[in-house]
Amino acid sequence: MAQSPSLITLLTDFGLQDPYVGIMKGVMLSRCPDAQLVDLSHDVPAQNVTAGALMLESAWRYFPPGTIHLAVVDPGVGSDRAIIAARVGEHCFVAPDNGLLSLIFEQSSPDRIVHVAAKDLYLKPVSRTFHGRDIFAPVAAALARGVSLDDLGTTTETWHRLDLPSPVHESDGSLRGSIIYIDRFGNLVSNVLGTQMLTLPRITIGDRQIDRLAGSYADVPPGEVLAIIGSSGRLEISVNQASASEQLQLGIGDEIHITSRMRDDDQA
Amino acid sequence: MAQSPSLITLLTDFGLQDPYVGIMKGVMLSRCPDAQLVDLSHDVPAQNVTAGALMLESAWRYFPPGTIHLAVVDPGVGSDRAIIAARVGEHCFVAPDNGLLSLIFEQSSPDRIVHVAAKDLYLKPVSRTFHGRDIFAPVAAALARGVSLDDLGTTTETWHRLDLPSPVHESDGSLRGSIIYIDRFGNLVSNVLGTQMLTLPRITIGDRQIDRLAGSYADVPPGEVLAIIGSSGRLEISVNQASASEQLQLGIGDEIHITSRMRDDDQA
Amino acid sequence: MAQSPSLITLLTDFGLQDPYVGIMKGVMLSRCPDAQLVDLSHDVPAQNVTAGALMLESAWRYFPPGTIHLAVVDPGVGSDRAIIAARVGEHCFVAPDNGLLSLIFEQSSPDRIVHVAAKDLYLKPVSRTFHGRDIFAPVAAALARGVSLDDLGTTTETWHRLDLPSPVHESDGSLRGSIIYIDRFGNLVSNVLGTQMLTLPRITIGDRQIDRLAGSYADVPPGEVLAIIGSSGRLEISVNQASASEQLQLGIGDEIHITSRMRDDDQA
Repeated sequence: MAQSPSLITLLTDFGLQDPYVGIMKGVMLSRCPDAQLVDLSHDVPAQNVTAGALMLESAWRYFPPGTIHLAVVDPGVGSDRAIIAARVGEHCFVAPDNGLLSLIFEQSSPDRIVHVAAKDLYLKPVSRTFHGRDIFAPVAAALARGVSLDDLGTTTETWHRLDLPSPVHESDGSLRGSIIYIDRFGNLVSNVLGTQMLTLPRITIGDRQIDRLAGSYADVPPGEVLAIIGSSGRLEISVNQASASEQLQLGIGDEIHITSRMRDDDQA
Repeated sequence: MAQSPSLITLLTDFGLQDPYVGIMKGVMLSRCPDAQLVDLSHDVPAQNVTAGALMLESAWRYFPPGTIHLAVVDPGVGSDRAIIAARVGEHCFVAPDNGLLSLIFEQSSPDRIVHVAAKDLYLKPVSRTFHGRDIFAPVAAALARGVSLDDLGTTTETWHRLDLPSPVHESDGSLRGSIIYIDRFGNLVSNVLGTQMLTLPRITIGDRQIDRLAGSYADVPPGEVLAIIGSSGRLEISVNQASASEQLQLGIGDEIHITSRMRDDDQA
Repeated sequence: MAQSPSLITLLTDFGLQDPYVGIMKGVMLSRCPDAQLVDLSHDVPAQNVTAGALMLESAWRYFPPGTIHLAVVDPGVGSDRAIIAARVGEHCFVAPDNGLLSLIFEQSSPDRIVHVAAKDLYLKPVSRTFHGRDIFAPVAAALARGVSLDDLGTTTETWHRLDLPSPVHESDGSLRGSIIYIDRFGNLVSNVLGTQMLTLPRITIGDRQIDRLAGSYADVPPGEVLAIIGSSGRLEISVNQASASEQLQLGIGDEIHITSRMRDDDQA
């Protein structure tokens, strides 16, 4: 362990109105008093594992080595879904095994995943409605105190994968993706990675056609639609100083189609 | 004082949009630089002392010994309502004397309550609109620095009790309670404690009748109504993976009626 | 540097739903592991520099000497707007040069302002959409580690001023101001400072006339309108235990007119 305090990030769909998150922090600080707690988000749309997975995947790399990431978006709480803890490089993760970590596992192969079964650590009695307090918080605090994955459970090679739509390569060379997330500014985030973009792209979404990638929002006048590779590395549709989601009346699941203007030029 | 930093929890109805909470934290860290601050909630419904009292009562026990709990839901700010500081076991509390602490005092008798009158500690001039900044934050920081209750004011034996409805035991042996809180997931939290439940309960709320207590949300299919003893130890009406409040169109004050099916069986 | 951990406050319009703020914290804690991070607000209305400036100006003084205040409300991200870092007494500030700091600079002359140009510190590659992560967070963390303004860029004497309406002194001696901010409780905050108030004021807003300044909300019965010098030192129109904004149907830009009843008395 480093000398600096152990850092634990929290991502949940518990919201900040109820004291659920505060209670989890109380449990963690009872078990690991010098832990440093950082909120990633507690406003994951309720029980939306996909949104939580995308948010965690866009954030974890920016934390220092040794960070423990605790994520609880858990529609199956109280069922027999497993809880997993994992090490990916110098980061640790704790989450229900429902796909919340699958984007991270797919992009950065985990060094180790265990099925958590460390009843001695749990709060007693374990409720069947608030594992965040009774199981997840104690397990994250144990990792922060330096407990090893070995002591938390047995290694598993399998884990739940998210059923996230992937962009489709059409036979005409075009790419058909979809909107998978909308952020606070109304930016429409797609499942198309910047690394997948075609040369000289023409992007069609709803009844709009956008013929180039902007480098920044300010590349177009206020109120105008633009396409951009956003801060998470994904193709986004935005409106400078306004909400693309509202202005275009588009949302999650809506299709985005990318052709290459090189092709058009060839044909012309 | 323990070696770990002093922990102060905050519960207010100030919201997180305005910088009021941040200002209180600035005052506390000016007075006690190594305090560790944890938010319980700042979205107590505005000036709703009952909701604040329920939230604090459900959370404080999960914090380590030595924690100071600062709660400011204070419709009477600037009036002559008193401010109290109290010790309950190894926890300290600071709040207006308006019932915010009364659920805690009723369940865990306080070792000591003082009427706060420690003008030397306050920010000068004391505004009449923001005691959170000018009085509450300095008093909590003083406790975090190890100032004793003796130095904050004079002992009082009386304190404001909340006028919270209690479940009524009817002459036919049934129990008549009501909904007192709705959480972020739309769970309807009642004033009936798990310890008060009848054997083989039949729960009637609105036009629904529920004939058993679930052990977890996942005990029923998604979209179905269930009754459960929630994480705060109270009877709750929930819908698996949806909002009971929306689906049943029920809210605070609505009645919940519990009979025992043993009785029915006897009669049958 | 003091021995206590370096304190960094954060004010943004990023909201708390997306993990943007958490990502900035990850970057800061990677660079300065023992920094103490305090949120002022992340719910500045989107891209509203004026609201952000008012919020920061009302809060910064309550933090201890040595605090670094990071503010990112940045509609011009990716354009050629400058980024400034400044020292005002024992506080440091980092923000885009778009007026976000101008209320502070006008009231407390800055000791030093620099145009930030410290590319070595930035995350690489610098995105053009998320300078909060790639530039602002590393620069604030550098200040927290004790890097001096000298090492961040070159001194500038000019900075962007906010185009905030000032109250107008009319030829009849009256004062004409306007509402510039509405807080969570619906209090209407004006651009008139308490120090500018006329003797024996009569305050007209919408169709209401208020003939005295209240000392606290509780000076009038619940539901009644009052005028008060609020906690930020500005004239506010409030309703005891309710929202003035809703009850009076007034908002930002609406006019507030102050005459002196002494004048009336003279004329009578």
